[in-house]
Amino acid sequence: MRRSYVYIALLHYPMYNKRMDVVTTSVTNLDLHDIARIARTYDVDGFFVVHPSESQHQLISEITGFWKEGYGGSYNPDRKEAFELLKLVHTLQEAIEMAAQESGLPVVMIATDAQVQPKTISFKQLKQDIHNEEKAYLILFGTGWGIHGDLLQRCQLILEPIEAGRSYNHLSVRSAVAIIVDRLLGENWYKHTDFLEHV
Amino acid sequence: MRRSYVYIALLHYPMYNKRMDVVTTSVTNLDLHDIARIARTYDVDGFFVVHPSESQHQLISEITGFWKEGYGGSYNPDRKEAFELLKLVHTLQEAIEMAAQESGLPVVMIATDAQVQPKTISFKQLKQDIHNEEKAYLILFGTGWGIHGDLLQRCQLILEPIEAGRSYNHLSVRSAVAIIVDRLLGENWYKHTDFLEHV
Repeated sequence: MRRSYVYIALLHYPMYNKRMDVVTTSVTNLDLHDIARIARTYDVDGFFVVHPSESQHQLISEITGFWKEGYGGSYNPDRKEAFELLKLVHTLQEAIEMAAQESGLPVVMIATDAQVQPKTISFKQLKQDIHNEEKAYLILFGTGWGIHGDLLQRCQLILEPIEAGRSYNHLSVRSAVAIIVDRLLGENWYKHTDFLEHV
Repeated sequence: MRRSYVYIALLHYPMYNKRMDVVTTSVTNLDLHDIARIARTYDVDGFFVVHPSESQHQLISEITGFWKEGYGGSYNPDRKEAFELLKLVHTLQEAIEMAAQESGLPVVMIATDAQVQPKTISFKQLKQDIHNEEKAYLILFGTGWGIHGDLLQRCQLILEPIEAGRSYNHLSVRSAVAIIVDRLLGENWYKHTDFLEHV
């Protein structure tokens, strides 16, 4: 049984675009669906969708409202259950405050990035910490071409890349969330791994 | 270094729908993008998209053609590289034959399913087999509400569910592919796990 709270946040600002300009990205519908379902599967404590724009908030509320309150909720109650974990906020600061308030614990911000960065924490270490420490881990996922360097600097820790030794590192954010959450919170197959026997 | 070939196939027939009727599902654009990128990241030997309908083949060819030969290929060469692994076929039989021909090895069909099924192989066992045996593993992923029981019966093996002990098992096929391929072919973090030391 893990002792920490684990939250994930999907960020749309400040992101890089392909030319390394700082941009606000638009919401991708399937990001919401896929990540909410991952969060529900692995008992993540909350899935923050962070977007500064009011019009994008309206769009997101329409999408999630259809599944939570509209026809979608009766047609597919599993989707409703997943979307109940989704919390829509304007800023990362709001997400941090909500995580702190809900958990009553200090919030540790952990960025994810496809490149090796300073302040790296390994999957193994973070998985152990989630089980052994009593904290609220808020794991940040970027869209576009990744999280802006200034925000990476502000995070306490940066998770190691998914497969650092590979020649190609261009997974979608949906795939990255799936793999990272599985590595950190997966229970089934990791029981076979000796390093978690003390967990 | 693994000794086996590993292929993945995304099936659109024969699938169940929500009422357990047998249906052909439509192609989802982001399935193609996300799964091609996963396949390229983890050095999967081929990604078969299996669809019986000619009009869906045309749609898929337009999507992939944009990224392989059109403007998309010069705008985003990483996507082009990923889509070069995508092979479009009408039937599973075609995929089996192509995998056999390319690898020169016996093809083992392994289904995936969200439910526990007979003929289950564990992640641990399949990961070991991929490294120790010399075979061509063709891992089947369903769309809609899952792969029809007759086809499950025809597979030599069925992979255990991703998180069998959980109360919610409704991941998207995109998330399922990401997690399963990472568990089977991931190199980085699994080096910390003792049971793979002999691999």
